[in-house]
Amino acid sequence: MTVHVPDRKTIEAQSLAQLFTEARTHNVFRDKPVSDELLQKAIELAKMGPTSANQSPLRVLFLRSTAAKERLRPALAPGNLDKTMSAPVVAVTAFDEQFYDHLPFLMPHRDMRSYFSGDPVKAARSAFQNGTLQVAYLILALRAVGLDTGPMTGFDNAKVDAEFFPEGHVKSNVLINIGYGDHEKLLPRSPRFSFDQIAKII
Amino acid sequence: MTVHVPDRKTIEAQSLAQLFTEARTHNVFRDKPVSDELLQKAIELAKMGPTSANQSPLRVLFLRSTAAKERLRPALAPGNLDKTMSAPVVAVTAFDEQFYDHLPFLMPHRDMRSYFSGDPVKAARSAFQNGTLQVAYLILALRAVGLDTGPMTGFDNAKVDAEFFPEGHVKSNVLINIGYGDHEKLLPRSPRFSFDQIAKII
Repeated sequence: MTVHVPDRKTIEAQSLAQLFTEARTHNVFRDKPVSDELLQKAIELAKMGPTSANQSPLRVLFLRSTAAKERLRPALAPGNLDKTMSAPVVAVTAFDEQFYDHLPFLMPHRDMRSYFSGDPVKAARSAFQNGTLQVAYLILALRAVGLDTGPMTGFDNAKVDAEFFPEGHVKSNVLINIGYGDHEKLLPRSPRFSFDQIAKII
Repeated sequence: MTVHVPDRKTIEAQSLAQLFTEARTHNVFRDKPVSDELLQKAIELAKMGPTSANQSPLRVLFLRSTAAKERLRPALAPGNLDKTMSAPVVAVTAFDEQFYDHLPFLMPHRDMRSYFSGDPVKAARSAFQNGTLQVAYLILALRAVGLDTGPMTGFDNAKVDAEFFPEGHVKSNVLINIGYGDHEKLLPRSPRFSFDQIAKII
């Protein structure tokens, strides 16, 4: 069904602040639990973001129990240990390099499975690329539902894969600590480039 | 300065719809120009999203002139040709594999430059990963300012790199057609996984 919508404007300032301009990466979280419902809501939002051929390679394990987090401990860089073990929830994001087996469901109107299934190198790169787009959608979706995040790439991917994804075709990507950040513990924001340093209109 | 903020709630429904649930990938755009101001605003939002060590590897060329778009033509897959040449603006997103040269500015309080500069393979992977996170921030930022997008990965990256990034250390990533989508021309939305198919809380 075709939907007619009026021209959209910039979303309201409070939303922009919560998603982009005021949001910060948190290393210290308050002692306040994160509900399953908000994690589910964030996934339901994030999964709507676009991926190549709708391949949707993102897979996520939300580690909440102490037992689950202890399985992650050996893979963490020393500098990330305390903040991660004390976060209410840690999301282990990953991507499925065999995403193409699901394309008959995800993109029923075109045969995209054969485009990827015979070329593991192309499929792996595409899974990493699109799974990473989806990590960013998830970070912004978690912020959108009112949570704070602390994304990290400093860990031993091979150890995480062996421990959590022994099937071999799912690869870990970014860890995201999740909770309600302690704003007292934030450092000043790091600098950003100006528009002209990174973009050009030609 | 430490800022005290009250507990955040989920952002308003209209913002969620514009960013995630109602937003669609567009292949046909209306004949309505896109202002430089909105492109700049989208970059200013997207650049605030988190990257590893604040490395910010995203680089963007917004192709608006016919001359600039003609330079892209030879690199496009046949199926992407018409929709791309007729889009008001095409963003060529890319990542700088030598992002580490900017880390003394971007992360002044820690020497992260040497962590990457001696290991080109690690740096290239990190630039691709973080540059791709930033592509997703940009897609959502473009939507946030009221624009529609049509992201694509089906093109010849080597040709784009040779034409637009001859310096050699900047690599093309995702193309994003930008404009005001023609909602009459949308196909039905493709299926998505359920929560349980892609995520687990343990």
